[in-house]
Amino acid sequence: MSTEEKRTDISKYGEFGLIDHLTHSISLQNPSSLKGVGDDAALIDNGNHLTVVSTDLLLEGIHFDLMYNPLKHLGYKAIIVNLSDIYAMNAQPKQVTVSLGVSNRFSVEALEELYSGIKAACEHYKVDLVGGDTTSSNQGLVISVTAIGQGEKEKITYRSGAKVGDIVCVTGDLGAAYLGLQLLEREKQIYLSQPEVQPDLESQEYLVGRQLKPEARRDMVELFARNNIVPTAMIDVSDGLSSDLMHICKQSNVGAFIEESGVPIHPEAQQMAIKFKLDPITCALSGGEDYELLFTIDEKDLPAVRLLPDIYIMGEIVPREDGIKLHTKGGNIHPIKAQGWDHF
Amino acid sequence: MSTEEKRTDISKYGEFGLIDHLTHSISLQNPSSLKGVGDDAALIDNGNHLTVVSTDLLLEGIHFDLMYNPLKHLGYKAIIVNLSDIYAMNAQPKQVTVSLGVSNRFSVEALEELYSGIKAACEHYKVDLVGGDTTSSNQGLVISVTAIGQGEKEKITYRSGAKVGDIVCVTGDLGAAYLGLQLLEREKQIYLSQPEVQPDLESQEYLVGRQLKPEARRDMVELFARNNIVPTAMIDVSDGLSSDLMHICKQSNVGAFIEESGVPIHPEAQQMAIKFKLDPITCALSGGEDYELLFTIDEKDLPAVRLLPDIYIMGEIVPREDGIKLHTKGGNIHPIKAQGWDHF
Repeated sequence: MSTEEKRTDISKYGEFGLIDHLTHSISLQNPSSLKGVGDDAALIDNGNHLTVVSTDLLLEGIHFDLMYNPLKHLGYKAIIVNLSDIYAMNAQPKQVTVSLGVSNRFSVEALEELYSGIKAACEHYKVDLVGGDTTSSNQGLVISVTAIGQGEKEKITYRSGAKVGDIVCVTGDLGAAYLGLQLLEREKQIYLSQPEVQPDLESQEYLVGRQLKPEARRDMVELFARNNIVPTAMIDVSDGLSSDLMHICKQSNVGAFIEESGVPIHPEAQQMAIKFKLDPITCALSGGEDYELLFTIDEKDLPAVRLLPDIYIMGEIVPREDGIKLHTKGGNIHPIKAQGWDHF
Repeated sequence: MSTEEKRTDISKYGEFGLIDHLTHSISLQNPSSLKGVGDDAALIDNGNHLTVVSTDLLLEGIHFDLMYNPLKHLGYKAIIVNLSDIYAMNAQPKQVTVSLGVSNRFSVEALEELYSGIKAACEHYKVDLVGGDTTSSNQGLVISVTAIGQGEKEKITYRSGAKVGDIVCVTGDLGAAYLGLQLLEREKQIYLSQPEVQPDLESQEYLVGRQLKPEARRDMVELFARNNIVPTAMIDVSDGLSSDLMHICKQSNVGAFIEESGVPIHPEAQQMAIKFKLDPITCALSGGEDYELLFTIDEKDLPAVRLLPDIYIMGEIVPREDGIKLHTKGGNIHPIKAQGWDHF
C-alpha cells in the first residue's frame, strides 16, 4: 500500500468496534447458521439441538506473561476461557481443539506442562480434546482454542434477551482476578530490580488464584437447569462488569441501573484494592477475567433465584433512554462507561 | 524450570511427532466425540449427520510473508486451507470462525483488505463467517481459522480406510505451489538487494497463483457424490505428497507403490523446476500447499474414476511390509520419505 493511501489507525475503533466494522456487512447464507458474530459463541442448528462454537486466541505478551503464568495453569486457563463462553450461552461444552505456535526456546517438557493443564481442564469439565496442531513460531507462544458445545433450543441464552424490569445478577465475586494481576505485576517489577528478593504471594492465594487458575461456572448452568430457570440474557465477565453489561444492554436495546452495594467483592479484593490505592468498585467494574456469569432474569424468577447460593442481585434493567448507571453507596448516580480490557 | 531439569529439544519429535507425543494419552469421554486428533478434522456425532471441525493457525514469518502475500489473497487462503480439510473428509463446510492478532502497524484499511479476501472465500464456497475476535499482537499477524462442516456418516472418508489393492489417486497437479513460492522468494531476494528492479512474475501467473491463491477441491467432492464414489481414504495435500501419503499409509497400516509417470506435474512446474535445478518429481513429492485431494478407491471403482476429469491414477496400496515406494521413469525403485513442510 503506498503512503498516499488512506491510513486509519486501528485504535480509532477499539477492540469491539473493529470486529463490528469488519464484519457488519456479512449476511448468513446457510440455514444452519443461526447466530454469527456478536455473542459469546456462534450457534449452528443441528435439528434436535444447537451446536455452540466459541474460539479464543491467546498471545504471549498480550494475554499472558510467562514470568508469572506457570505453563500448566496457562493451559488450564486457555481451556477455561473458552468453556466459559459456552456456559454463558446456557449450553454444555463437549469438545475442544487446541492449536499452538511455539518457538524453539520451549522444550518438550515445557509443552508437556502446558498440555498437562489442558488435559486437567478437559478432565475436570468432561470435554474431549479432539483436534488441533502445533506449529513453529518465531513470535513467542500462541494458543488458539475452539470449544464446541451443545444446547437446547429453548434454553440458549443470548446477550440480546434482557427486557425492562428484568433483574441483573452475577455469580461469585468480581475484581479479584484483576487485583491478582496487579500483585503479580508488582512482584515481577520487584524481581526484575532485586532478583534476590523472594516473592511472598502465599498470603494472597485467593487473588493470585483467581488470576492464574480461574474456573468456568458449569455449576451455575447446572443449578439453573435443576431449578428450571432460564436467564433472559447472559454473558461471562471476561472484559469487566461495565463492558460486559454494556454488551447486554447494547444488544438488548435497554439500559441498566446497578446498586454499588449489590456488586459482590471478596474481602481480600476489598483490602488489596485499598492497599493499591484503587477504588474496589472500579476494580469490580473494569477488572475483567473473573469468568463469572452476568445474567438477567425475569422478575417472576426472583423468589427462586434469591434462594440459590453464590448469586448476587445487583440491579435492574431499565429503558434504554435511562442509560447504564451506578447508584453508589454514597448516594450518587454515575454513568457506567466501558473501561474493560482493550488491548489496542 | 531450573537448568538442571531435563530439556528435550522439540526438533527431536518434529511437527507430527510432537502432537502425537502430547496427545497420545488422551481418551475421548463424550459419546458424541467420534474422532479426535489425527485426521484432517474432528468428527462429532449429531444424530442425523456428523459435524466436522478443522482448525489452523497461520503465523507471519512462518506460514506467510507479507512482502509477497497480498492481504486479500492471504485472507482468501486462510479460509481455503481449512475448507480443504473439511472436503478431505468428504464433507461440506458450512461455517468458519476467524480470530486475528494484529499489531498497530496494520491500518484499518489493511484489515479491510484481509477481510475482503476472507469474505470472498466465504461467498465462493458458500460458508458463513459466524464468529471470532480481533486482538492486539506484538508478534506480527496471527490468523486462526476454524471451519465447521457437515457430512453423512456412511460417506465420511478417514485417513485410515485404505486397504491392500486400492488404487491411489490425486486431483489436479502437484508441485506448482512450491515452485511459485521459490519464484516469490527469488524475487524478494532480488528486490532486497536491488530495489529498483521490477519483478516480472506475470509470465509465471500459474505457479504464483497456485501459491498465493489456492482453491479447495469442492468440485471433486461434488463429483464423487454425483458418481456414487466414496474414496476408501482421503487427505488433502498440504504437507506434500510424500508426507500426506505416509499419513494415509501409517493410519491405514499399509504400504504404497507409486509410479513416477502417474504423478501429475503441470508443464510450467516441470520447466520451472529445471530452471531452479530441481527434480520435478521431488517438487511434487515434497512441495506441499497444493490443496489437491489425495485419495484411495476400491478397485471396483476404477472404471468409473478413469472417466472423471482431473483425477490422476498414481499407484496402488500394497501390504505394509512392502513399504512406501516410488517406481521412477528410469526403472528404479526408491523408498518415499516424508520431506514435507516441517517448520521446526
